[in-house]
Amino acid sequence: MATTKLWTDEEISANPRVKAVIDDIRTTRKSDFINNFWRALANQPAVLERTWSNLKQVMFAPGALDPLTRELIYIAVSTINGCEYCIHSHTAAARAKGMSDEQYAELLSILGMAAETNALANALQVPVDLEFQVR
Amino acid sequence: MATTKLWTDEEISANPRVKAVIDDIRTTRKSDFINNFWRALANQPAVLERTWSNLKQVMFAPGALDPLTRELIYIAVSTINGCEYCIHSHTAAARAKGMSDEQYAELLSILGMAAETNALANALQVPVDLEFQVR
Amino acid sequence: MATTKLWTDEEISANPRVKAVIDDIRTTRKSDFINNFWRALANQPAVLERTWSNLKQVMFAPGALDPLTRELIYIAVSTINGCEYCIHSHTAAARAKGMSDEQYAELLSILGMAAETNALANALQVPVDLEFQVR
Amino acid sequence: MATTKLWTDEEISANPRVKAVIDDIRTTRKSDFINNFWRALANQPAVLERTWSNLKQVMFAPGALDPLTRELIYIAVSTINGCEYCIHSHTAAARAKGMSDEQYAELLSILGMAAETNALANALQVPVDLEFQVR
Amino acid sequence: MATTKLWTDEEISANPRVKAVIDDIRTTRKSDFINNFWRALANQPAVLERTWSNLKQVMFAPGALDPLTRELIYIAVSTINGCEYCIHSHTAAARAKGMSDEQYAELLSILGMAAETNALANALQVPVDLEFQVR
Amino acid sequence: MATTKLWTDEEISANPRVKAVIDDIRTTRKSDFINNFWRALANQPAVLERTWSNLKQVMFAPGALDPLTRELIYIAVSTINGCEYCIHSHTAAARAKGMSDEQYAELLSILGMAAETNALANALQVPVDLEFQVR
Repeated sequence: MATTKLWTDEEISANPRVKAVIDDIRTTRKSDFINNFWRALANQPAVLERTWSNLKQVMFAPGALDPLTRELIYIAVSTINGCEYCIHSHTAAARAKGMSDEQYAELLSILGMAAETNALANALQVPVDLEFQVR
Repeated sequence: MATTKLWTDEEISANPRVKAVIDDIRTTRKSDFINNFWRALANQPAVLERTWSNLKQVMFAPGALDPLTRELIYIAVSTINGCEYCIHSHTAAARAKGMSDEQYAELLSILGMAAETNALANALQVPVDLEFQVR
Repeated sequence: MATTKLWTDEEISANPRVKAVIDDIRTTRKSDFINNFWRALANQPAVLERTWSNLKQVMFAPGALDPLTRELIYIAVSTINGCEYCIHSHTAAARAKGMSDEQYAELLSILGMAAETNALANALQVPVDLEFQVR
Repeated sequence: MATTKLWTDEEISANPRVKAVIDDIRTTRKSDFINNFWRALANQPAVLERTWSNLKQVMFAPGALDPLTRELIYIAVSTINGCEYCIHSHTAAARAKGMSDEQYAELLSILGMAAETNALANALQVPVDLEFQVR
Repeated sequence: MATTKLWTDEEISANPRVKAVIDDIRTTRKSDFINNFWRALANQPAVLERTWSNLKQVMFAPGALDPLTRELIYIAVSTINGCEYCIHSHTAAARAKGMSDEQYAELLSILGMAAETNALANALQVPVDLEFQVR
Repeated sequence: MATTKLWTDEEISANPRVKAVIDDIRTTRKSDFINNFWRALANQPAVLERTWSNLKQVMFAPGALDPLTRELIYIAVSTINGCEYCIHSHTAAARAKGMSDEQYAELLSILGMAAETNALANALQVPVDLEFQVR
């Protein structure tokens, strides 16, 4: 029920610009599986190229946050944005990167707690303490 | 500019029910500083008690996620919910728990990237792959 | 710090189309006070007219929900949408319509609780029970 | 299509910690029906316990807001958060607690109206009137 | 899976108040097709009347923004609000009004980019430049 | 009140990596004015580089949507996300690109209308018509 068609492997192979991105996704993720997000973005090659290029840097380059922590943050954003697709894909990714049941339970607790205190602080319009401000 | 008044230390001391919660916050956080969120919630002692009791469990009990990771997730939720107060308080908390500049830069990158792909996946209404579904 | 200027009483009086709406607001609300929302909308007379006409029907016409309940629902929506202005104006309106401290505390509890379970249900992508569906 | 499995009655019965919560839900709500939200949360017993304990206080304890008003507020939050599951479950709950067609129509009007003026006030960045501020 | 029933053509024809609105929708849009949104709103005739009257003014009256631009803005709001129904209906409407593949790709790019910088500006709590403020 | 410091012109000039991006912003926008968003992002040079590179492509490259239409879409996203900074900066940018008062009034009308029908469609959980689905 996408608003655009999803590209098949045959259609991807027939378009060199799209194929180059998809090949790099397969190589980077060490898996042949291409999920529907990329099959939908294939309709817009420029968006596909830019999105993957950015995602590759943000999620796959070495850095100060480990891969699982990155996925936990991604799930948090996706949950609050109500992105059904992204919640599913990044929960699966977190599990593939080793998220334990205990870690998932704690993630859920923090998501719920933060959403609750966000609502309280917004409803009360609590002024930011001077101690928290960078000047 | 809160929608309710913020309790002073004197007002807190004069109300045993509120004082008990505030004392526990001070003990648990090993700091005398009480930020405005709790001073606003003091107007509703039952909400104050329940909120602190839950937050203490979720953010201070030992568990499978370390304290800094919990704060990073809290910042993510607060940012997407647009909670000015919570963004400030939890960014300060993350720094107090050792968040480096490099970790903060990566957190920002992931927040931005996730928000971007959430918008794309929602706009395209990408159907969830069978591979991501738990049956 | 609005993105548009706020109309003074003199400017309102000098524009018959705007004045007619503002006069009706004063009559309907039985108060001379005109808050900034209407002073900003005055820059767009057609939007001002349509917005007030709708709001008058929805919030001031007799109906099945009493005026205070309507304000509580308005605060709930405004809080989740993070609308600082609307949270302030409708919290003030609810108090003017008799909201007690106890009712406000319960409203806050429900806002927080609902935000929390919304996050949990979205994160878990819980399928809707057949029992809840209208067929 | 949940991101976790839903517990059957048999699985619930076999786990004393989970069974204790589910039994209390059945007793409190005077119904044997256990909806999918609790069957999903059963995977995380600590989250299940805490969530139910809080919800029981917020939604079932006697207070200053009647049960139907609480559900109307819950629907408002869930709608703006876009929580499909919660919209369905709390609309069903509101009907079970006596929400009339006329009340539902007015709820819808207020949700729409508030969402509209939230967008206008945010777009115009209307400054909060001094009259609305608690000092 | 709506929370209310969807009215059939027969039910619409049997209710003069509802029929009058639906007839005007058909005339204004020059099409017999009535989508589910209006069939659901038919349960609340006053909301149906008011919503259509407003939408007709906002989306169909001549003005300074062309019909396609209006649809692009509508898609943007619907995407960020995560309204699955509205994303589908207004993407279809934009295509019917001539949205090209290139325009759609650019819309997607802007949606993603804006969502990303919104997250960054909110996370960093960047103060508004004096140059942007209307005084 | 940012969560990070804002870089002065002197600090920018002293850091070649940051200076290169800021210089390109000045050249591309044909203006010496550097707004606070970029002065805050300067703390994270990699995020600064990537964000500007993307924004330059999305907002400044020639394409199928004219510059003003792009800004209107940007305002729409920013308003619904409640990003105070972005609402101010992109409303100013839209005016600089020629947005008339009439166009702004229509933009506001569409923002409000879309937010309203989003709330209604979400509350009613209207099922997507088959006619809107791409298969």
